[in-house]
Amino acid sequence: MKNDILKIADKEFNSRLFTGTGKFSASELMKQAIVASESELVTVALKRVDVKDDQDDMLFHLRDNRINLLPNTSGVRNAKEAVFAAQLAREALETNWIKLEIHPDPKYLLPDPVETLKAAEELVSLGFVVMPYIHADPVLCKRLEEVGAQCVMPLGAPIGTNKGLKTRDFLEIIIEQSKVPVVVDAGIGAPSHAAEAMELGADAVLVNTAIAVSQNPIAMGEAFKMAVIAGRMAYNARLAPVEDKKAIASSPLTSFLYE
Amino acid sequence: MKNDILKIADKEFNSRLFTGTGKFSASELMKQAIVASESELVTVALKRVDVKDDQDDMLFHLRDNRINLLPNTSGVRNAKEAVFAAQLAREALETNWIKLEIHPDPKYLLPDPVETLKAAEELVSLGFVVMPYIHADPVLCKRLEEVGAQCVMPLGAPIGTNKGLKTRDFLEIIIEQSKVPVVVDAGIGAPSHAAEAMELGADAVLVNTAIAVSQNPIAMGEAFKMAVIAGRMAYNARLAPVEDKKAIASSPLTSFLYE
Amino acid sequence: MKNDILKIADKEFNSRLFTGTGKFSASELMKQAIVASESELVTVALKRVDVKDDQDDMLFHLRDNRINLLPNTSGVRNAKEAVFAAQLAREALETNWIKLEIHPDPKYLLPDPVETLKAAEELVSLGFVVMPYIHADPVLCKRLEEVGAQCVMPLGAPIGTNKGLKTRDFLEIIIEQSKVPVVVDAGIGAPSHAAEAMELGADAVLVNTAIAVSQNPIAMGEAFKMAVIAGRMAYNARLAPVEDKKAIASSPLTSFLYE
Amino acid sequence: MKNDILKIADKEFNSRLFTGTGKFSASELMKQAIVASESELVTVALKRVDVKDDQDDMLFHLRDNRINLLPNTSGVRNAKEAVFAAQLAREALETNWIKLEIHPDPKYLLPDPVETLKAAEELVSLGFVVMPYIHADPVLCKRLEEVGAQCVMPLGAPIGTNKGLKTRDFLEIIIEQSKVPVVVDAGIGAPSHAAEAMELGADAVLVNTAIAVSQNPIAMGEAFKMAVIAGRMAYNARLAPVEDKKAIASSPLTSFLYE
Repeated sequence: MKNDILKIADKEFNSRLFTGTGKFSASELMKQAIVASESELVTVALKRVDVKDDQDDMLFHLRDNRINLLPNTSGVRNAKEAVFAAQLAREALETNWIKLEIHPDPKYLLPDPVETLKAAEELVSLGFVVMPYIHADPVLCKRLEEVGAQCVMPLGAPIGTNKGLKTRDFLEIIIEQSKVPVVVDAGIGAPSHAAEAMELGADAVLVNTAIAVSQNPIAMGEAFKMAVIAGRMAYNARLAPVEDKKAIASSPLTSFLYE
Repeated sequence: MKNDILKIADKEFNSRLFTGTGKFSASELMKQAIVASESELVTVALKRVDVKDDQDDMLFHLRDNRINLLPNTSGVRNAKEAVFAAQLAREALETNWIKLEIHPDPKYLLPDPVETLKAAEELVSLGFVVMPYIHADPVLCKRLEEVGAQCVMPLGAPIGTNKGLKTRDFLEIIIEQSKVPVVVDAGIGAPSHAAEAMELGADAVLVNTAIAVSQNPIAMGEAFKMAVIAGRMAYNARLAPVEDKKAIASSPLTSFLYE
Repeated sequence: MKNDILKIADKEFNSRLFTGTGKFSASELMKQAIVASESELVTVALKRVDVKDDQDDMLFHLRDNRINLLPNTSGVRNAKEAVFAAQLAREALETNWIKLEIHPDPKYLLPDPVETLKAAEELVSLGFVVMPYIHADPVLCKRLEEVGAQCVMPLGAPIGTNKGLKTRDFLEIIIEQSKVPVVVDAGIGAPSHAAEAMELGADAVLVNTAIAVSQNPIAMGEAFKMAVIAGRMAYNARLAPVEDKKAIASSPLTSFLYE
Repeated sequence: MKNDILKIADKEFNSRLFTGTGKFSASELMKQAIVASESELVTVALKRVDVKDDQDDMLFHLRDNRINLLPNTSGVRNAKEAVFAAQLAREALETNWIKLEIHPDPKYLLPDPVETLKAAEELVSLGFVVMPYIHADPVLCKRLEEVGAQCVMPLGAPIGTNKGLKTRDFLEIIIEQSKVPVVVDAGIGAPSHAAEAMELGADAVLVNTAIAVSQNPIAMGEAFKMAVIAGRMAYNARLAPVEDKKAIASSPLTSFLYE
């Protein structure tokens, strides 16, 4: 397992658990939960960062050598807004990495496939490392890969629902076909869901609500850390196949008992 | 978590992962996988032990201070045979713990509820610590508890199928009602399944096929170890609730972008 | 399909939809819903029938040549009470058919496997046609068959939940092994669930809550009627196999377009 | 139910079951299965029609007043090919209705969201009634509606798999948000799946493989017909709610038995 490193663009990650910063009740608690999770890539919503203030509370708490910030474009509704937001983020946070989220739908925050592809193409040409959040749509994933997205981030279930891998059948196809890392994003509500994604062969998962909203975010951060490692180890060790009702008949004990 | 000890009868367990010894390709590999899993309770099929031979290969490999042997009655078809087998096991392995398995069905190895209850009652009266393997039947679990079974071991799916928690709805009721530890047995085919059982509130899980049949049983044993810990931590930290389609609407970024 | 008749004991049924009489808002509505469903076997709870009153409102509404009454023992807690209730029912309703329900659990009304088997054996010896309501436990089903139960009635999900076939994996085994008709009882909350049970090869289904609690029980009765027929036809016509992700590649249209 | 007519563009449909013509072993059998299904809209793959031959076998069999032909663009790989194919189809089959299918992926035949939206917009401007086959992507559905697609046809599972409504969580959102009819396409492998889609509120379903590949396509066609009607009736009559484990406690029978 020593060499089982995840590489996206030019960065290497020891941890395959990415985390978000929304919904925590306090910044200090957020920091401790993220540290417990050992996550090395942490999304921040540009709109929640006061980019003019270098004393910004959230950013202050996330200053840590092991933590890479990944600004997201949450709140934008089309490609044009996304590109503008990404440029702001690059300037403010001094990173060319961007989590591309375009969701015109204010209710379910589901991503727009067409605008996402358009924005991804432009952002790649502008030198960004683009990590697009999308529906678990295998064809869209291939197209994003073709325009230069450095990974794809298909959703497991509508964001914030904690429902787990409702898109499992499609994630399997995406993982089978993808030449860039596949990061399952949204819907992961329990460590078992994270482990399941890793067992399928996902390269990483992104978890936010499930950690932030738990009664004990620090313990939950650690639980997710271990579940992701467990799922990855199981993937590498190969799961036993699922059998359809076929138990292996055992010889009866009777002969032994009465011999 | 320091005090989160599992207690069955008079024994305390640091590990909530119980393991089986069937289907491994070699005894030494079995031993290493069990050590990697940190399991402290390990089932052995009486019929696979040469009780007259104190050089028996399997038993030799399982001699370890941290490992408690749990003989099972696999292969018996009714209560009478089970009681006899348990007595043999007590003598041979010098333990009054018994995993009670009565499966007249040679194809799916599913347990017999009526014979199991009858045998449990008698074995308790004979001084055994009885751990019955049963269908995920909440009423049967209560009756076993009433006759003195020290835990209940409902199945997740038919044994050897690796299908996971197909009985989840009933496991939830069993866990809600039980006053003795609930150990989910059979069907757990992946670390994510084990984590899920623990997240539901199961007290422990028993895993055999999934570890033994993996390409790398040692790594898989460790993966299960971590998944069980992760699931237990998540249970204690409380999972975020599952929401039905309701994403929390975010404020649009627009105002920020153009202010 | 003309000869696809269901036979239980000495009775033949054209309809494979059995219905219950609980939870309807009015007796007249109940009658119309049952007529719309074309159900020929209708359960009545003994305790809700005033057996001394031959003007009893519910019974009055169910007097119909095509409808066979099936008294149930709902409310009893053990075999002794069940046998007594069955005898009362035989006298009051002049039928030796009995739906055997023993649920000591007042919360989830889940059945007791041990008492049910004991009562079934005794009732068979007393000349009853015994239809036992049980957990989806394949071994218990075989034992009930062995003591002479004329069918088995495994549950799909806890009664009243409308969750559908949560026990599907076990129903498949029961159907495969049973020599008496298998009637899926409890949990069927939608016509699609009833169709699914029939597609699996169940011989009939029993539906109550889903019809009674609908906004339009008469239409719902008819909907279930059609779904059961559809599911049975599909079973007889053989479903196409479920394929794992394998679409059949189509030849590209291109050659055609540009030839 | 008398007025429960489905309207797409200017056409009214009594049947909410659309069917396909692929994979049948013979044209005459296909015809009889479609007649038994009472389907009024039948897809034909342009590439399988010999458009220059007015004696074409398949078309000959589908000449029926009640059957509307719906040519599809199966086999095209991008918007440009799709528009060209649609124009050919309009000329050959004298209909401006087109089922828009663009799947560059030759293995799973999954649709391309970006090319589909582009083609839909152009085809609408050319006067076509556009019925796009797409992933169950709620945002894409809204965008197709905005460019004038007369319905949306989200998939339930990868085509040909017969896996049922794997996209159920997303279909619910699509149905909730759509202002045009929602036709669930692909993956429906059993009448129970079709009934489930209708119970969710889908306006229609399209079934092909499940009928064509059955051992008895004519009976299966009729089974689907009834399942679709049953599901629609249940939707209109409102399903009883799914309850989480809560059975309604019944009063014990004991008082009655011994009073």
